[in-house]
Amino acid sequence: MSQTRSPSSQPAVAPFPTVGVIGKRTDPSVKGTLLGICALLRELGREVLVDEIHADTARKAGVPAVSRAELAARCQLVVVAGGDGTLLDAGRSLAGHEVPVLGVNQGRLGFMVDVNPEELREALQAVLAGEYLTDDRLLLHTRIQRADGSETTPVLAVNDVVLRNLASIRMLEFETWLGEEFISQHRADGMIVSSPTGSTAYALSGGGPVIHPAVAAIALVPICPHTLSDRPIVVPADRPVKLVLRGADNSKATVTCDGQVSEPLSPGDTVVVSRAPHPLRLLHPHRYHYFDVLRDKLHWGRGPARG
Amino acid sequence: MSQTRSPSSQPAVAPFPTVGVIGKRTDPSVKGTLLGICALLRELGREVLVDEIHADTARKAGVPAVSRAELAARCQLVVVAGGDGTLLDAGRSLAGHEVPVLGVNQGRLGFMVDVNPEELREALQAVLAGEYLTDDRLLLHTRIQRADGSETTPVLAVNDVVLRNLASIRMLEFETWLGEEFISQHRADGMIVSSPTGSTAYALSGGGPVIHPAVAAIALVPICPHTLSDRPIVVPADRPVKLVLRGADNSKATVTCDGQVSEPLSPGDTVVVSRAPHPLRLLHPHRYHYFDVLRDKLHWGRGPARG
Amino acid sequence: MSQTRSPSSQPAVAPFPTVGVIGKRTDPSVKGTLLGICALLRELGREVLVDEIHADTARKAGVPAVSRAELAARCQLVVVAGGDGTLLDAGRSLAGHEVPVLGVNQGRLGFMVDVNPEELREALQAVLAGEYLTDDRLLLHTRIQRADGSETTPVLAVNDVVLRNLASIRMLEFETWLGEEFISQHRADGMIVSSPTGSTAYALSGGGPVIHPAVAAIALVPICPHTLSDRPIVVPADRPVKLVLRGADNSKATVTCDGQVSEPLSPGDTVVVSRAPHPLRLLHPHRYHYFDVLRDKLHWGRGPARG
Amino acid sequence: MSQTRSPSSQPAVAPFPTVGVIGKRTDPSVKGTLLGICALLRELGREVLVDEIHADTARKAGVPAVSRAELAARCQLVVVAGGDGTLLDAGRSLAGHEVPVLGVNQGRLGFMVDVNPEELREALQAVLAGEYLTDDRLLLHTRIQRADGSETTPVLAVNDVVLRNLASIRMLEFETWLGEEFISQHRADGMIVSSPTGSTAYALSGGGPVIHPAVAAIALVPICPHTLSDRPIVVPADRPVKLVLRGADNSKATVTCDGQVSEPLSPGDTVVVSRAPHPLRLLHPHRYHYFDVLRDKLHWGRGPARG
Repeated sequence: MSQTRSPSSQPAVAPFPTVGVIGKRTDPSVKGTLLGICALLRELGREVLVDEIHADTARKAGVPAVSRAELAARCQLVVVAGGDGTLLDAGRSLAGHEVPVLGVNQGRLGFMVDVNPEELREALQAVLAGEYLTDDRLLLHTRIQRADGSETTPVLAVNDVVLRNLASIRMLEFETWLGEEFISQHRADGMIVSSPTGSTAYALSGGGPVIHPAVAAIALVPICPHTLSDRPIVVPADRPVKLVLRGADNSKATVTCDGQVSEPLSPGDTVVVSRAPHPLRLLHPHRYHYFDVLRDKLHWGRGPARG
Repeated sequence: MSQTRSPSSQPAVAPFPTVGVIGKRTDPSVKGTLLGICALLRELGREVLVDEIHADTARKAGVPAVSRAELAARCQLVVVAGGDGTLLDAGRSLAGHEVPVLGVNQGRLGFMVDVNPEELREALQAVLAGEYLTDDRLLLHTRIQRADGSETTPVLAVNDVVLRNLASIRMLEFETWLGEEFISQHRADGMIVSSPTGSTAYALSGGGPVIHPAVAAIALVPICPHTLSDRPIVVPADRPVKLVLRGADNSKATVTCDGQVSEPLSPGDTVVVSRAPHPLRLLHPHRYHYFDVLRDKLHWGRGPARG
Repeated sequence: MSQTRSPSSQPAVAPFPTVGVIGKRTDPSVKGTLLGICALLRELGREVLVDEIHADTARKAGVPAVSRAELAARCQLVVVAGGDGTLLDAGRSLAGHEVPVLGVNQGRLGFMVDVNPEELREALQAVLAGEYLTDDRLLLHTRIQRADGSETTPVLAVNDVVLRNLASIRMLEFETWLGEEFISQHRADGMIVSSPTGSTAYALSGGGPVIHPAVAAIALVPICPHTLSDRPIVVPADRPVKLVLRGADNSKATVTCDGQVSEPLSPGDTVVVSRAPHPLRLLHPHRYHYFDVLRDKLHWGRGPARG
Repeated sequence: MSQTRSPSSQPAVAPFPTVGVIGKRTDPSVKGTLLGICALLRELGREVLVDEIHADTARKAGVPAVSRAELAARCQLVVVAGGDGTLLDAGRSLAGHEVPVLGVNQGRLGFMVDVNPEELREALQAVLAGEYLTDDRLLLHTRIQRADGSETTPVLAVNDVVLRNLASIRMLEFETWLGEEFISQHRADGMIVSSPTGSTAYALSGGGPVIHPAVAAIALVPICPHTLSDRPIVVPADRPVKLVLRGADNSKATVTCDGQVSEPLSPGDTVVVSRAPHPLRLLHPHRYHYFDVLRDKLHWGRGPARG
């Protein structure tokens, strides 16, 4: 089960002695939120490190600015202020370090950044007092095996790994494999390989199902497939999913992780997507419920009739 | 993992000393197949018991005809001859007993009855020699909690539990819950609660994804939902899924398991679907691959380019 | 083109000397609206007739209550207060008479009842002054040709004619024809035959497209079809669409018009749906735009960037 | 109605005195078919002109090779040998001239090239004797109005006009308009503007409906839209459809006609798609039925039960 409640007994030592702070890259309005977070964390007796991207804000707050790597290495908790995109970005850089992440949204509720600025003090106090939910999210570990035998540096994705064609001739030909088992051949605009977390992002637009984060599965969602029965498939996450590009070399096939990191692909290349050894650990206030966020984001109805 | 290869070392005792035989109910042409199976099993030194529905065939074959319950209790293996419907029916009656099942199709490949009549001898010899794949399928354990506090006898389903309205006023109002967590309110023609096995049956027609049997999940697929964002959801199978009927009592809401067993539902009643404690264990010849069957049934393309 | 602006020159005689008033059947709150409409119409010098369902309200307003047939025969305009369901019901009874209809919503904007109660005075004044848009909606004329050669009394539908099975065995087998041309065989839960007006109702839940009312077409939307390539089809409205029920007589197949009028169907029976000779004529205030209503009802975004 | 049967009375003069021949560009096997067509046409007393792309085949056949423009100007009929792609290409170049086209498939039945090589003689004899069906297909006339006021040379499309983003940041922001009426804002991978003919091509992969060629409509099918209620819309073909690109200039938005002609698009540019003044006129043998081809191509079932 991915979501667990923290033990009710209070720990002897204050948890999370060193807390990192990461903010949205391009939004100047995030500075105020970051200053607030820094002040609050220091008030609550924590050492604070700020991502070097916001070095000027760190200076203003009187705390050190460090690289992502150092932040990941030295902190026991990272607070991310921004939208889901900021958390995707932070999540990829922290994932190898098992540092839990608390997401504070800027302006509008996200699927993962679920703490509202106005409840920041209350939420941070609770989390730092050990009162939180743990929500582990499966990460996608992606590497490309080139036709010539070489291999790319692996990249992590929180949401999805997407194969698409950037040429105006749109159709790609590729095969899908689950471990050593052949799934199918496809002629399509592309393929979305999605984690449960990513199932509410691009994969949903492509016709895929919503997948609860506690399901240890990966979704394969073909984009505009030529064959109408070429439907989304949900496969177990314990074996790698492989995409093998076929066809002539007239495409500009590209693989993109979380919409942020791209790599070109040539016929004969294989994209290998496996479950990363460590999950992304999200922390939430106790009032968090996955479906509350889902209902809000998908504009479903309100609460239950009996509640 | 649901699919495992049997140990390569030969067991000391011949496996499956007593084998049950179940055939399609209404198809007279199944008799020849049943006689062939009985003869083959006896030739291979097994005690054979035939489902009492085909008592006359049992008499012809010179083997006892017994009830389903006795068959389930005394056999270590059951051979089912027919289509997927026959296997659904057999699977429900055997499920509590952990007796593995081998499906022999009559006429046309099924998703579960994957041994063709012409390869019957070869397949049975292999399986009885301990050469087979084990493929455990999650079963849906369903009971209805009435608004008055009473409860129906639980029923097992291999494929799906379907809530539908049999009145000409089509729309139902109901809530969905995952354990104690509220999912959403729905206004729809109904809801398909599907196992991974059922994901290629009715749920697929309703717009649900294909779910590999090794994924421990249950799919919720709304039928013609009023809200366009009311999309299929895949949830973990470790907690019960609940449907609570709401609205006025002008509906003829009905719950159907595997399209075979139906029960009326009234406003305030709750359908509780959980993973059954024991799976349905299917046996397959070693050449079986889940995706081979899927490609064949969904009319996808042929094999991989490189193979 | 279905939507035309009325001539700018003022007619010599006051248009619509006699105006009918029809209200929602079961909603007591509609009485206030009806009284307001009656008072306003009399103030504007019109003779007023109220549908006999609301005879008590007619009495209070001091105007005659008459049958639908008389209302249709004597009025040059009918004002309908309620929701889209009320307008569907009114539309079917008025359709043969070419009486235009103005829809006033009760509470919540409908696709067809687009005048809000608070703008009632302004809208009625404008319409009675000849300032309005004419919006002709294709109606579906439906009759059942029985296998024995007999035929049912035709029924009109504004939205859709739906074939469904009310038995718990859900699948129906039927054929579709466009005039004398065979379209296809289907195995499905049913079929929605929809007008452009109905394309935003049940047909949309079934996966059909939105069809602008100015398109002279009928949509065939299969419900949960067994074959995944059995997709919605849009056909020209100038030829009848036919559904022929096939298969064994173990179904409770039913044909329903606008979700309100139902008729059982047996194997060999044919449902013939053609474009009715006269449309349903809706009137709208000049500010009406089809897509404004659509955006509102489907929760699309706001207005254009440039305007 | 787009499909009409030719008059049964024989015309006084032999129809189609000069016939053009166009073949698939890149397939050497088409040469044999072209030679056969040329021989047959000369045997039937027609003057033959071959597209200059196949000048060598023309030489072999002893007939003149001319430019597309000359061919369009001088012929009363053009025979196209190849697949639907060849006919799309030919259709665009002939469309302004109202020359009817007869499509002969190479290898595999197309939606438009429906004469099989083995029935070539019979089909050509019938058509040249005036025995054929006329099947007029709406063409899409497309031009881009640049933000700076300039305008591109119009291009014709038989199937579709597709807006897509060739950058790895996939989402585009754009508005849709029907004439002067605002439809909606969209955030999506792109938009398919499809003719009825194109409804069985890319638009079908994108989730659009099949539209019968006799429906005078254009389909707007969003590609992977962000908003789940952003569904395919079918609008009347009598007013132009407009797409206005919005958002920042970080995209590589591109407009492609029939997958063959592409043009980059910048924020503020408007794509205007209207019904071309002249249709593409296809001729078919009398046995042709639109739904026969559809059933074959979409792998639906066979013929009707009663036929």
